[in-house]
Amino acid sequence: MTVVHEMEIRVRYQETDGQRRVHHANFLTYFEMGRTEMLRSHGHSYRDFEDAGLFMVVSDARLSYRAPAEYDDLLLLRTRVEKIGAAHIKHAYEVIRGTQIIVTGETTVVCVDPEGKVRRLPDWMLG
Amino acid sequence: MTVVHEMEIRVRYQETDGQRRVHHANFLTYFEMGRTEMLRSHGHSYRDFEDAGLFMVVSDARLSYRAPAEYDDLLLLRTRVEKIGAAHIKHAYEVIRGTQIIVTGETTVVCVDPEGKVRRLPDWMLG
Amino acid sequence: MTVVHEMEIRVRYQETDGQRRVHHANFLTYFEMGRTEMLRSHGHSYRDFEDAGLFMVVSDARLSYRAPAEYDDLLLLRTRVEKIGAAHIKHAYEVIRGTQIIVTGETTVVCVDPEGKVRRLPDWMLG
Amino acid sequence: MTVVHEMEIRVRYQETDGQRRVHHANFLTYFEMGRTEMLRSHGHSYRDFEDAGLFMVVSDARLSYRAPAEYDDLLLLRTRVEKIGAAHIKHAYEVIRGTQIIVTGETTVVCVDPEGKVRRLPDWMLG
Repeated sequence: MTVVHEMEIRVRYQETDGQRRVHHANFLTYFEMGRTEMLRSHGHSYRDFEDAGLFMVVSDARLSYRAPAEYDDLLLLRTRVEKIGAAHIKHAYEVIRGTQIIVTGETTVVCVDPEGKVRRLPDWMLG
Repeated sequence: MTVVHEMEIRVRYQETDGQRRVHHANFLTYFEMGRTEMLRSHGHSYRDFEDAGLFMVVSDARLSYRAPAEYDDLLLLRTRVEKIGAAHIKHAYEVIRGTQIIVTGETTVVCVDPEGKVRRLPDWMLG
Repeated sequence: MTVVHEMEIRVRYQETDGQRRVHHANFLTYFEMGRTEMLRSHGHSYRDFEDAGLFMVVSDARLSYRAPAEYDDLLLLRTRVEKIGAAHIKHAYEVIRGTQIIVTGETTVVCVDPEGKVRRLPDWMLG
Repeated sequence: MTVVHEMEIRVRYQETDGQRRVHHANFLTYFEMGRTEMLRSHGHSYRDFEDAGLFMVVSDARLSYRAPAEYDDLLLLRTRVEKIGAAHIKHAYEVIRGTQIIVTGETTVVCVDPEGKVRRLPDWMLG
């Protein structure tokens, strides 16, 4: 897979909290959207992945919050593959509004079977 | 099953929105907690229900919002069985803070199998 | 305002539940997105609305769930203004996948000020 | 403040995803509940904090997912103050089911005013 994917995300009212900013937990959901759409941009669907009996589960996450995002903001999410191992992928993320960095982060996802046992990534992902 | 169950719910920060009130969608989640805990108070677990290959899916919901609830409010959720049919249960709900009614609502849940086909409720639910 | 708005919504993984379908509470969030985007399609922003010291709060909601939606489904949300009063708007919604109706619903939103007092809708909304 | 707080959290159906496990973003919400209840156990309310014009915003988070949590699990959340600075607090968390560690994590929260400017923590927090 090539290494960078970009998508826009419009902040939903439901995603804000009493501070009128996007609740910090939602950025993990945004990152997940980035992974899904990056796969799709390569002609794959994570749904097919699960239908084949494999799951990607998050094993580690790290987020750094630099500036608040607000309702109705149009954010740019940049997702990058940092590293691919036999059974895991490390992604890095930037959420940007205009020229301002809102959040940066990293996650590691691991390929497991329905019993939770670590499994090798499919060849089309490694290729 | 007897007919009324009460539980307390502490409003989480994440559940509020930019208006500093509980986002209206969360009350459906509260209602679901009421159904779960009502079952438990009768010695049953909805998890066992699913492990037996049955699912309760919501077919209809109605909510009436009377007053806002805010972060850290301690709410009382009152769940009542309105009607039990062969394959469905109708519940009514009140969310109360002190003497003030915050939200009232109703849902209908239907018993289905993994293919989504309507199935008769287990005897222990009808009894 | 004219009366129908359509938008597409891609189902997020986070929006599904253990039944592998969109959790029923999320449709209220989808409806809210429909209201936001309908306003925007008329050249207005709900954010400006709040910045002017007015809030639209949901007073009533009704949902009817016809068929499950799943992760990665591309749904069509159709939002229609049913009725505009001096201080409230009633919307109707259909969520559709292909030719299949997933969910239908209605909400009533009321215009209030920061103290929660009912206020007349701005002229540009009534016009 | 003393340093460890424990609370139980019952997993909600809404918090699970299509893998039938708690969606990974929800642990940040659990951590937030731990901070709120730890404050309360010391006789303070985060709501009062905001009413006084101060906000705690998350600047950094790190999570390590060890094992899945499922619907209806009764989890123990252990929240610990790691470090208190003039304007920030670092917490560490463990989410445990029985003797099994589900998730560990850390967050840093920073005290800001409504304009987002960093402010000294109130004395009662430092004492």
